[in-house]
Amino acid sequence: MSDTRNGAATAPLILICNDDGITAPGIAALAAALDGLGELFVVAPASEQSAVGHAITVRDPVRAHPWAFSVPSGEVRAYSVSGTPADCVKLAVNQLLPRRPDLVVSGINQGPNTAVNIIYSGTVSAATEASILGIDAVAFSLCQWQGGDFEPAGRVARFIAEQVLRRGLPPGILLNVNIPPLPSDQIAGIRITRQARSRWEESFHERVDPFNRPYYWLTGQFVNLDDGGDTDLDAIEEGYVSVTPIQYDLTAHQHLDAFRSWSWDAVPE
Amino acid sequence: MSDTRNGAATAPLILICNDDGITAPGIAALAAALDGLGELFVVAPASEQSAVGHAITVRDPVRAHPWAFSVPSGEVRAYSVSGTPADCVKLAVNQLLPRRPDLVVSGINQGPNTAVNIIYSGTVSAATEASILGIDAVAFSLCQWQGGDFEPAGRVARFIAEQVLRRGLPPGILLNVNIPPLPSDQIAGIRITRQARSRWEESFHERVDPFNRPYYWLTGQFVNLDDGGDTDLDAIEEGYVSVTPIQYDLTAHQHLDAFRSWSWDAVPE
Repeated sequence: MSDTRNGAATAPLILICNDDGITAPGIAALAAALDGLGELFVVAPASEQSAVGHAITVRDPVRAHPWAFSVPSGEVRAYSVSGTPADCVKLAVNQLLPRRPDLVVSGINQGPNTAVNIIYSGTVSAATEASILGIDAVAFSLCQWQGGDFEPAGRVARFIAEQVLRRGLPPGILLNVNIPPLPSDQIAGIRITRQARSRWEESFHERVDPFNRPYYWLTGQFVNLDDGGDTDLDAIEEGYVSVTPIQYDLTAHQHLDAFRSWSWDAVPE
Repeated sequence: MSDTRNGAATAPLILICNDDGITAPGIAALAAALDGLGELFVVAPASEQSAVGHAITVRDPVRAHPWAFSVPSGEVRAYSVSGTPADCVKLAVNQLLPRRPDLVVSGINQGPNTAVNIIYSGTVSAATEASILGIDAVAFSLCQWQGGDFEPAGRVARFIAEQVLRRGLPPGILLNVNIPPLPSDQIAGIRITRQARSRWEESFHERVDPFNRPYYWLTGQFVNLDDGGDTDLDAIEEGYVSVTPIQYDLTAHQHLDAFRSWSWDAVPE
């Protein structure tokens, strides 16, 4: 668990990010839970960035402000960033951190990041960005939309972070962890899962503004299309922590040969 | 190619979206290229939305304004939307279109969406959103950052759209197409590829504003880490159109068993 890459054993450097913003209770719980596991450094968005997906800020500059952040053992270096979760990780790794981190953790998100919701998740995108940069990363989410006790989720996060620091992750792979909203003694265990097939059955509420112009609010109902029994949704429903190894290579490798058999020769000139 | 799901043969309904905005030359070229292939309907962001990834608008309402849009054969119904590419697809499918579309095409993007850049791409996210909604979808990008002739890319887009309308795509799979910036008679052909391993070697330019506060501009150099020969980057470099089948199931299925062998039993209570 010690970092000897510089010839000296130092505590691992752990970057903590999220998408709910630096003042969210989930990131405070995550930092507190990891207290003592290494050198902690918090770089998180100044404001809530939910559902930003893997957005990055390329047309505007990004700002970082030092932020007062403490864990039980004392003060932790922290910055509040005027950007997305992916921006935070890029800026932290390239500018703010004293050296390359050994681990990036993101969360604890308020609300699940299971099934197709992974695609929209800023929490997951922070971890994905770290993985793209070649750094081991884990995203943590508490499966409760409002409130809840982040302390049991924090314990799970520490347990998983310890294992990842000890074992390391395969290149290009990160972990997406969802934690059921249960007291510690009611969490049934940890399961390795796959992302459930699902979709949102959306509807937009159409309204008319005082100037008689229509506008739309996105609403919708989440639908689980998967009855496999081994998915992230199944684990949560049965009181287990769901750990899904995910990747940012989106290639559908299993379909390459089938597509090669299409008629691609007659490209129009 | 006819839609007989309603018992009557009707022209396929094709939704056209992008991330460069409804006034971008690439979407005009795409619509013109598909003229006559079916009933076209354009729903695109009011302003440029590059690098928004799979962001969706959940905290604000979305607006849609009718937009004058024409192709060689005449006027096409079109809306300009105050949201992200994924918002456009959701709103189009749920509110604006007369029926469920047979195909969603996105682009033609100004600039490549190859390798790791797929993750950040608004162009690809529009197609991904359609695929999540169960609709066949293709993203098109011209591998040139500024200007260029979109007409050859348009011909390729039509050729591929015809094939997808005829054959259909497997569930959960969409196509990410990148087109080299070449005249039609110099395009070498079409290749089925995989997403290259790559990364951005980022650096931030730190500057100081007139009030002595620092701010950062994201810059960086793209690095191809892949020498496989069968990637999207290879195809483009050799003058081929790159067609990569991609998926939004991010599960690293090939690693599930290895992760199950970790010690997950001692969840802390």
